Parts: sequence; C-alpha cells; structure tokens
Amino acid sequence: MNKPLILVTNDDGIDAYGIRALIAVMNELGDVYVVAPDSPQSGMGHAVTINATLHLEEYNKFPGPQKEWSCSGTPADCVKLAKQQILPRLPDLCVSGINHGSNSGISVIYSGTMSAAIEAAIENIPAIGFSLNDYSFNPDFETSKYFVKKIAQQVLQNKLPNNIALNVNIPLGKLQDIHGIKVCRQANSLWVEEFEKRIDPRGKDYFWLTGYLKNNDEGTDTDEFALKNNYVSIVPVKADLTSYTTIRAIERWFD
Amino acid sequence: MNKPLILVTNDDGIDAYGIRALIAVMNELGDVYVVAPDSPQSGMGHAVTINATLHLEEYNKFPGPQKEWSCSGTPADCVKLAKQQILPRLPDLCVSGINHGSNSGISVIYSGTMSAAIEAAIENIPAIGFSLNDYSFNPDFETSKYFVKKIAQQVLQNKLPNNIALNVNIPLGKLQDIHGIKVCRQANSLWVEEFEKRIDPRGKDYFWLTGYLKNNDEGTDTDEFALKNNYVSIVPVKADLTSYTTIRAIERWFD
Repeated sequence: MNKPLILVTNDDGIDAYGIRALIAVMNELGDVYVVAPDSPQSGMGHAVTINATLHLEEYNKFPGPQKEWSCSGTPADCVKLAKQQILPRLPDLCVSGINHGSNSGISVIYSGTMSAAIEAAIENIPAIGFSLNDYSFNPDFETSKYFVKKIAQQVLQNKLPNNIALNVNIPLGKLQDIHGIKVCRQANSLWVEEFEKRIDPRGKDYFWLTGYLKNNDEGTDTDEFALKNNYVSIVPVKADLTSYTTIRAIERWFD
Repeated sequence: MNKPLILVTNDDGIDAYGIRALIAVMNELGDVYVVAPDSPQSGMGHAVTINATLHLEEYNKFPGPQKEWSCSGTPADCVKLAKQQILPRLPDLCVSGINHGSNSGISVIYSGTMSAAIEAAIENIPAIGFSLNDYSFNPDFETSKYFVKKIAQQVLQNKLPNNIALNVNIPLGKLQDIHGIKVCRQANSLWVEEFEKRIDPRGKDYFWLTGYLKNNDEGTDTDEFALKNNYVSIVPVKADLTSYTTIRAIERWFD
C-alpha cells in the first residue's frame, strides 16, 4: 500500500517550533510536503492574496525526508498553491500548526491555523488544525506530539465527512496531566478588546490590539470547558455559515 | 424617539463608490458613523491586526451629516476600533459594503465585507453586509440603494437573533429586472483556482491568484440560485462553525 500523502502548513511561519514538531510526527505517518508562510501570519483569518503577487521558494534549511517550500502568502494561499502547483496529487491529509497559542471558542474565525485547515476541507481534503494552549516562543511540544499522532491516525484511517475540518486544542501539561480527548462544540465566547493607545515620536496617536477571550458559555460540552478541565478538545468545523434556524424567522419580512 | 445609531464600514476602502452609496441611504435612517479602511482590503477574510500598529484619522473629504474616520487596519479592526474608541454607545445597526462584487456561496469566508458584519454580530450588534454582483470600478448603485434601505429598515425594526449577521447579495440590473428578495442558505460552492504563473524581470517565477466560483449545489434554496434568477439573496450567517452532525460521528473514535 502506498504511504499517505500529507500536506503540512501553519500560520506562525515555516521556522516556528510548532510546525517542526508537526513535521516530525507526520514523517512517521506518510510522505510529507510542507508549504508554509515565510513569516508569521497570526490573526490572518481566512485571508487570501488578491492584490499582490505570490512567491514560492524551495526551502532546505531543515534535515529530514519532507519536501519544503516557503510561501509569501497567507495560510489559505499556501494550501491553494500547494494543491495547484506543488503536490503530485490531492493529499490524504492536511495538517496545520502546531499553533503557539490556543484557537478555541470564537478564536477559530480569526485563526490562520484553522483557515488553512478549512481551505483544505473546502477542497474535500481531510484536515486538522492543531493548537497548543501556550503562547511562549519555544514551548514543550512533546505531549502535543502524542495527541497529534493519535488524532491524525484516526483521520487517515476513517477519513472525515465531506468539507469538515477538525479544530484541535491541546492544554498545557505533561501526558499524565491530560485526562483524554473530548469531541466538543465551539464555545460561545468573544474577544474583549482593550486597545492600548500610544503616542508616536511625532505626537500622533496609534493603537495596539490587545484583549482577552471571554467565555460566555456555561455549557459543559464546549471546547473551552474541555481545555479548562485538562482535556484535548476537538471541534468539527464547516465552512457553511448559514444559520438555518434564522432563515424561517426572517422569511416573512419580505412577503 | 432617538434616531438609530448606525456604523458603516466596508472592505473596498473609504473612498469607494459602494460605501458612498451605503452612507447616502443610512443618512436617511439614522445618525451615521463611518469607520472604514484607508485602502482596499478585499479577500482579507476575518483578519485582524496583531503584529502592527493601527491608526485612525478623522476624514472630512466628503460632504454630509455623517462623521467619518479612516483606519489603517482590516474591516474587522474597523469594527473593533469603532466600538472601543469612537462610538458614543453600542450602535443599533452595523452595515458593511456595498461591495464591488458578489459574496455569495463560499465567498463569504474570504470576504472582508462580511468579516466586518460578523465581527459586529459577535458583539451582538445587528449587522448586514451588502454586495453588488458587479466588479467594475464605478457600477450603478441606484437599484442597490432601494434594497439596502428596505432590508436595513426591517433589521432596525425587528432586530436580529443574537450573533446573527445577514449576507445580502444584489444582482445586476434595473429595479424592474429584479423579481424580489429571497432568504436562502449558502450554496455549496468553491473557488476553482487558476494561478497565473509569470516571470519577473530577474527571471524568478511569481503567481497571481485568479479563478472562478464553481457552484456544486443543485438546490433551489441557495443564494447562488436566487442571484442567477434575478432575486436579491439574504443568507443569515453565524460565527459558530461547529458541525453538530459530525460530533456524533467521531465521538466513538476516542472511547
């Protein structure tokens, strides 16, 4: 049997420790192609590059059997370019991450990590975004690697329903601290922004976006709840944003 | 009774003809604050500016009762900054557009226009993104203005369910060519990419993203179907990406 073909990308950039951990695991599972941004793309949501040119470069900085390219675009651009210009066939799996920082709750819609996974899902490629709830530059990815492998193996074996990607968030801690894996729904949460206003050397105001994720959801079936209780959370996500329940509510407006 | 407070933004930039048409209509309905990008932001998806500073400038180029600010950030940044730094209270309505080009089907997830509306919806502000199915620089927005007013009035009067935004697409044509308004679901469609490969003056390859929207959905209840049949389409959208049907399917994987 042929080895699975696996596309790896991320949003922290091709040199990030998180993608290196992900590549190490994927090299155990299949033939690995890496197409990742040449610079950090956090917070890029599902951006694509329309008004600028895109560059791809073969990238040979790191040892290993994987083939690598760096890309000047966003995570979604990386998936599109990989499929159209690089991969020998549609891959069996696309993995994105491991993100430095969690993408639970509403963060999924701001997340470059998840935009790559969703882009792959739109193309019917089974896809997973992995994030570690640790914002440091060089976190310990050893525990993450255990769960990445376990979840990726399940997806390679069982596939996923059409156009579905998995949003996986991993809590901080050693393997023995983590109680298991929970399949969840996205918590109803939002970022509470606290812009930091500063004054530049020429006396002009400017702002830095800061803030914190606020969980407004008391459910025990959410990703926020799972993470808080030291479980790995998996939320299956889709690109159909339709609120079906609202369709009926507003139809009568225009009778 | 106080006049409604209305926030106007877009992704084509504060000087675009589409936002000028939108402002003209909103000035008839309430007190208007405009906070819009200082340059085009098409395809930005739900990007936010994390790794760069944000600037806001009062903008007095255009006549009218509205108050205006240009912003160096993305459409989602504009909504966040407007709420935190500019608006006297939470607005009664946020409108985004009128986009030069449609945002039907899967385009909603790449759309800066809709990211602004979804950002407002997350904050529980009733929100609408408007797009005209015409990609020219200076389209005729007269027909659009009729539907913009009609739909905005309904939302001001009835509100929307929590965290829901409306994705409104308007077909080309005169008023008498358009058969009415349909509340729809998002069509299952995807962008078929055809990167155009070019060679720069120094002999290096680069790419432009091009392509077309392919509708894989034969349903007659979709936005693509409505537009094709000369109806204005309204898809209610939400920021919860959870695929609830998939939760059950994959739960047993990790028993």
